[in-house]
Amino acid sequence: MKVAAGIDIGGTNAVAAIVLADGKIETRFNFPIKKFPAIENLVDELSDAILKNCEANNFELIGIGIGAPNGNFYSGSIEFAPNLPWKGIIPLAKMFQQKCNVPSWLTNDANAAAIGEMIFGAAKGKKDFLMVTLGTGLGSGIVANGELIYGHDGLAGEMGHTIVVRNGRQCGCGRKGCLETYCSATGLVRTIKEWLQDGKKSSLNNIDINSITSKQIFEAAENNDALALEAFRFTSEMLGMALADAVAYTSPDTIVLFGGLVNAGNLIIGQTKHYMEQNLLHIYKNKVTIVASQLPESDAAILGAASLVWKESKA
Amino acid sequence: MKVAAGIDIGGTNAVAAIVLADGKIETRFNFPIKKFPAIENLVDELSDAILKNCEANNFELIGIGIGAPNGNFYSGSIEFAPNLPWKGIIPLAKMFQQKCNVPSWLTNDANAAAIGEMIFGAAKGKKDFLMVTLGTGLGSGIVANGELIYGHDGLAGEMGHTIVVRNGRQCGCGRKGCLETYCSATGLVRTIKEWLQDGKKSSLNNIDINSITSKQIFEAAENNDALALEAFRFTSEMLGMALADAVAYTSPDTIVLFGGLVNAGNLIIGQTKHYMEQNLLHIYKNKVTIVASQLPESDAAILGAASLVWKESKA
Repeated sequence: MKVAAGIDIGGTNAVAAIVLADGKIETRFNFPIKKFPAIENLVDELSDAILKNCEANNFELIGIGIGAPNGNFYSGSIEFAPNLPWKGIIPLAKMFQQKCNVPSWLTNDANAAAIGEMIFGAAKGKKDFLMVTLGTGLGSGIVANGELIYGHDGLAGEMGHTIVVRNGRQCGCGRKGCLETYCSATGLVRTIKEWLQDGKKSSLNNIDINSITSKQIFEAAENNDALALEAFRFTSEMLGMALADAVAYTSPDTIVLFGGLVNAGNLIIGQTKHYMEQNLLHIYKNKVTIVASQLPESDAAILGAASLVWKESKA
Repeated sequence: MKVAAGIDIGGTNAVAAIVLADGKIETRFNFPIKKFPAIENLVDELSDAILKNCEANNFELIGIGIGAPNGNFYSGSIEFAPNLPWKGIIPLAKMFQQKCNVPSWLTNDANAAAIGEMIFGAAKGKKDFLMVTLGTGLGSGIVANGELIYGHDGLAGEMGHTIVVRNGRQCGCGRKGCLETYCSATGLVRTIKEWLQDGKKSSLNNIDINSITSKQIFEAAENNDALALEAFRFTSEMLGMALADAVAYTSPDTIVLFGGLVNAGNLIIGQTKHYMEQNLLHIYKNKVTIVASQLPESDAAILGAASLVWKESKA
């Protein structure tokens, strides 16, 4: 049976899995990143695990797909990822290709998620959609004409770093007012912290301000805490305005939202849709669906990575 | 010899031309729009002119390309164009196809210009670029992976209606702060008018405020009028900021600027490049070229329309 390997490189763990053509995950391996100060050792261990599993199960491995922060599809390299222990340019696709002797592809996490949704998830069969991941930051993958847009340098799709408030919040990228400083788990926490520091009242006052999490804000909102509800409204308004602009670029029919924040359901999805519609140019109104990812949160990254193989080996 | 017909529908004139494969314009016809309250009559006259010319010259007409405001590539129709006498949905591509018995395509002016630049002009051979037309409004065409992005509904690429100033200038679309209210010939004139009405001093004070044109502002800037120079700087700053965001979506290597304002040369191009670089996310810095269109202004629209034929009949 033909299988693909999907590898998700995160800040804490590297997860690999053997994935069947229908998206079923056959086996999964988990390696803590900090055990591998040298990337070569991680490649060796992951490759061994993948190859042995395929041999034992009589699987034909047709390729390896990798999702990684700062991943460049064209070069197949991780380029200057701030949150990984390996510095500079890491030609990871080539390293796996040589070790496992199968074609290998690499892209960033949000692009991998977009392909995962297109092959297995909420955007199955869609030719024009936008993937937005709301995690620590805001990642995006743009699909147009049925193809992921990589740009001339492999680095397209950084919607999280478009400016939503001129001279707004300081962003980790060095600039100010980037969308991800408002619309992400971190952005939601920043919003509440700013308001609490301004003396606003909330049940969240009982929590140490430096340890507040987006999950706690969601719980407070579920218990009708007015400030927590307002934080979700504000986050949705910022995201809705940004998505209205995004639609004017590539005119997608679907926007797939992914990540912890999406668990807040209509506090995010419904309100974001409301504010997007309010801000859309008339020709786009009532045409764009916003949906939650249909991939289980724990599997999405590796399914996305594996789907790179199914996508590219068909191409 | 194989030829294409290019038709440019504008607010004042419909211009058609017979165009050779190398972009040479063989013949050109011009019909004032106001002579044709019924679209059928315009289609008849243009078709007759095209077909007779091809017959007389022994040309083989391989297709017709049309650029028109509010043109939808997928439907081949002009949809609710506010500045044309024909209301509602006009299935223009189909009408020409039936009349002339050759395949016909239609898209909006900015998309046609983008394809024109890709086939004949400043973006020859480019796979990822952005076309921005600075005229009465701001039009845009996005090319990624070598393909024009039409979006799910044929209406992608409305960068002129992304918001550059929240609650900013009133736009004709009904919303506020759209890029084209600042960055266009009209936007430049609005900027100067606002400032003159605020009592700012300029050589332009000598002109009736309601008749000031972008050309006069350019002439004043060339004569070192400080207010006119500041208006070009301000326009370039707004455009540079907007382009920095646009780059984060599709990561083009080239941005082609077209239209009357571009005649101001580095007052627009150089300054826009400066402000774009200042606002770009670090991964995109020093990678994106901004160039003026290489198509003669009087020919660009019909060359763009004709190039639709060469592009689509190859596809």
